[in-house]
Amino acid sequence: MELKECGQRARRASLILGKMGTEMKNAALSAAAEAIISEEEAILAANALDIRRAKEKGLADGLLDRLLLTSERIMGIVEGIRQVCRLEDPVGEVISMKQRPNGLLIGQKRVPLGVVGMIYEARPNVTADAFALCFKTGNAVILKGGSDALESNKAIVSAIRNGLAASGVCGDAIHLITDTSRETAREFMRMNGVLDVLIPRGGAGLIRTVVENSTVPVIETGTGNCHIYVDESADLEMALDILFNAKTQRIGVCNACESVLVHRKAAKSFLPKMKQRLDAKQVEIRADRDSRVIVPEFAEAMEEDWGKEYLDYIISCKIVDSLDEAIEHINRYNTGHSESIITKSYENAQKFLNEVDAAAVYVNASTRFTDGFEFGFGAEIGISTQKLHARGPMGLLALTSTKYIIYGDGQIRK
Amino acid sequence: MELKECGQRARRASLILGKMGTEMKNAALSAAAEAIISEEEAILAANALDIRRAKEKGLADGLLDRLLLTSERIMGIVEGIRQVCRLEDPVGEVISMKQRPNGLLIGQKRVPLGVVGMIYEARPNVTADAFALCFKTGNAVILKGGSDALESNKAIVSAIRNGLAASGVCGDAIHLITDTSRETAREFMRMNGVLDVLIPRGGAGLIRTVVENSTVPVIETGTGNCHIYVDESADLEMALDILFNAKTQRIGVCNACESVLVHRKAAKSFLPKMKQRLDAKQVEIRADRDSRVIVPEFAEAMEEDWGKEYLDYIISCKIVDSLDEAIEHINRYNTGHSESIITKSYENAQKFLNEVDAAAVYVNASTRFTDGFEFGFGAEIGISTQKLHARGPMGLLALTSTKYIIYGDGQIRK
Repeated sequence: MELKECGQRARRASLILGKMGTEMKNAALSAAAEAIISEEEAILAANALDIRRAKEKGLADGLLDRLLLTSERIMGIVEGIRQVCRLEDPVGEVISMKQRPNGLLIGQKRVPLGVVGMIYEARPNVTADAFALCFKTGNAVILKGGSDALESNKAIVSAIRNGLAASGVCGDAIHLITDTSRETAREFMRMNGVLDVLIPRGGAGLIRTVVENSTVPVIETGTGNCHIYVDESADLEMALDILFNAKTQRIGVCNACESVLVHRKAAKSFLPKMKQRLDAKQVEIRADRDSRVIVPEFAEAMEEDWGKEYLDYIISCKIVDSLDEAIEHINRYNTGHSESIITKSYENAQKFLNEVDAAAVYVNASTRFTDGFEFGFGAEIGISTQKLHARGPMGLLALTSTKYIIYGDGQIRK
Repeated sequence: MELKECGQRARRASLILGKMGTEMKNAALSAAAEAIISEEEAILAANALDIRRAKEKGLADGLLDRLLLTSERIMGIVEGIRQVCRLEDPVGEVISMKQRPNGLLIGQKRVPLGVVGMIYEARPNVTADAFALCFKTGNAVILKGGSDALESNKAIVSAIRNGLAASGVCGDAIHLITDTSRETAREFMRMNGVLDVLIPRGGAGLIRTVVENSTVPVIETGTGNCHIYVDESADLEMALDILFNAKTQRIGVCNACESVLVHRKAAKSFLPKMKQRLDAKQVEIRADRDSRVIVPEFAEAMEEDWGKEYLDYIISCKIVDSLDEAIEHINRYNTGHSESIITKSYENAQKFLNEVDAAAVYVNASTRFTDGFEFGFGAEIGISTQKLHARGPMGLLALTSTKYIIYGDGQIRK
């Protein structure tokens, strides 16, 4: 199907989805989950094809693993859809309603965005996940997944459409772009009037491409150059635990810690312990000159290290003379994702919370908590690092807009 | 000053503004208002220069009027700033705070956006207005006004900066781009990392240019192809009053009515009365064939009329067979601004409110109420017709973002 037709169909479907009740949406989601189970064989066969081609292309092991589907992983996808079923439907809530002096009753009601576009990498699980979240919030979705996962995505979307059909819902609620050309990608990013928003999910390169080429409103997600600042007054054992967790619990994620700042008065005691602790996972520590005076084994940090999201067993390290210097450094080099201070000082905690410019600012906790599930949203469509519309982990609410509904009895403007 | 330097200075200023208390912000706004009063002479002289050049260029009368400043209009600008002073400061409010099972206390706090860019036409009053709203919400602002108002804008910004200086606030809170080249405009729209949002205010052409060329997040404002639907059960006198108000009370604004849809069963009685009523203001009525059978004096509507924002004493008119047809027509041709149904039917009112896709949907009231002041926000930076971030009239809240603040006591992720 041509992109233009996809768009028109999604647009029409969105008007129907927008007025669909929660019960019907949940029934359709359950049917989609069932269909994925009953079409597991076809999905696995399609995935095997993707995997074979990807191996021939010489795709890296990490990427192959993200592409791979197994029976267990398919059950994970199904369980994900079922979880979304159980979440409360935010659509239809009237957030506020006030009477104006002229008698007009003005309310603000939560409504779907309309048509959501998603561009993501070769991760077939995102396909079902994005559909479920968009569908639950009454949005149609147009998906453009990484070309390496094309066969898997086709099979998953086909199953979802069969499930929708079985529950009497139009399959146009979900579209997959199968044309992998650049021209189509470019056209997709310029579908104003069709797409209400475009959400890229993936690495820094993908997100930059979308931000630079899209004329449709974009929600920028993702890259995280997250810092932990160990204050003069920090409980050093707590700092070690949190740093170790934030750096090594999972390295390839945007909320992992990439840089540690240490107050000069804590450095002499902290840095050797930090080295010992991070050595357990062979973390490479790239440090400034002052840190290397204390621990000569540290590697040397270059200017470029301060801005880097390693997504690896590497961390940059710098000594600062004050909380102000730490805040200034963070606000200069961070990507607006997650930042944490380890401190016993009330004053410093509050100052850090107030002055650090990021989606999530922590006191005495790991940056790894920046996540829709950990925040209690029950789901996550991504983590916004921009300030417009949604900032931080995005759950169902981020997939809604509002409209004003106004009840009058003949009011005209004077 | 070069654009790049403007950006860096605004960025730095935004960090200071972000932590400035409400009292200091209000004092600085008052000082800016005072400075505009005391520099009235210079502002009027600059404006006279703009006006002379504009007349030489042959600018249309309507545009000249928007460009013109008088003592009275300057007092209006000053009063506007003072009103913003009196509004509640939304920054710092913690919207919600919840404790997670692991003990983390997660709150969502309202913060400034950072640096706001504004692109607008040759209306010097917008300069002070945009500054006041952005400053009150702790944002730095970079303004690019229409070139015809350049001298007036320079004089106003100079006065504001003097006012800020008098109250000890850095003048970098406001920047005016004085280079009117296309290259600079283009560069401005691509200042990712400096601008957090770009808000265009003006006609359809200006807004389209910004949407198509900007890589910075944009809030699309403005164009309104607003409909009034006269239902079968409408109180026809009320319908006439509302239609007359919405079409003629002020023709050049985005919330004016541009199209009327009439239920077939009401048409025979309503259309002749409507003609009579609109004749008082010599409104040209461009109608479909069925309407012209009833009132042959109506002009003929072309397909293109249904999508037009006339901003003039012209209205399109169409007979529909049902509420469904009216809703379908509106959702096809509208610009997502303001739509109104005139009806006595509870069921039809609710259906219209639910199914029409627009920022503001009315029952039995004029579309002219879509406005930040009429909605009780005390101010307006524009009317958003997109669904992301803000939809409908935007007051101070639309100029804020949020950040998550998280209080822990050593939590790490399992």
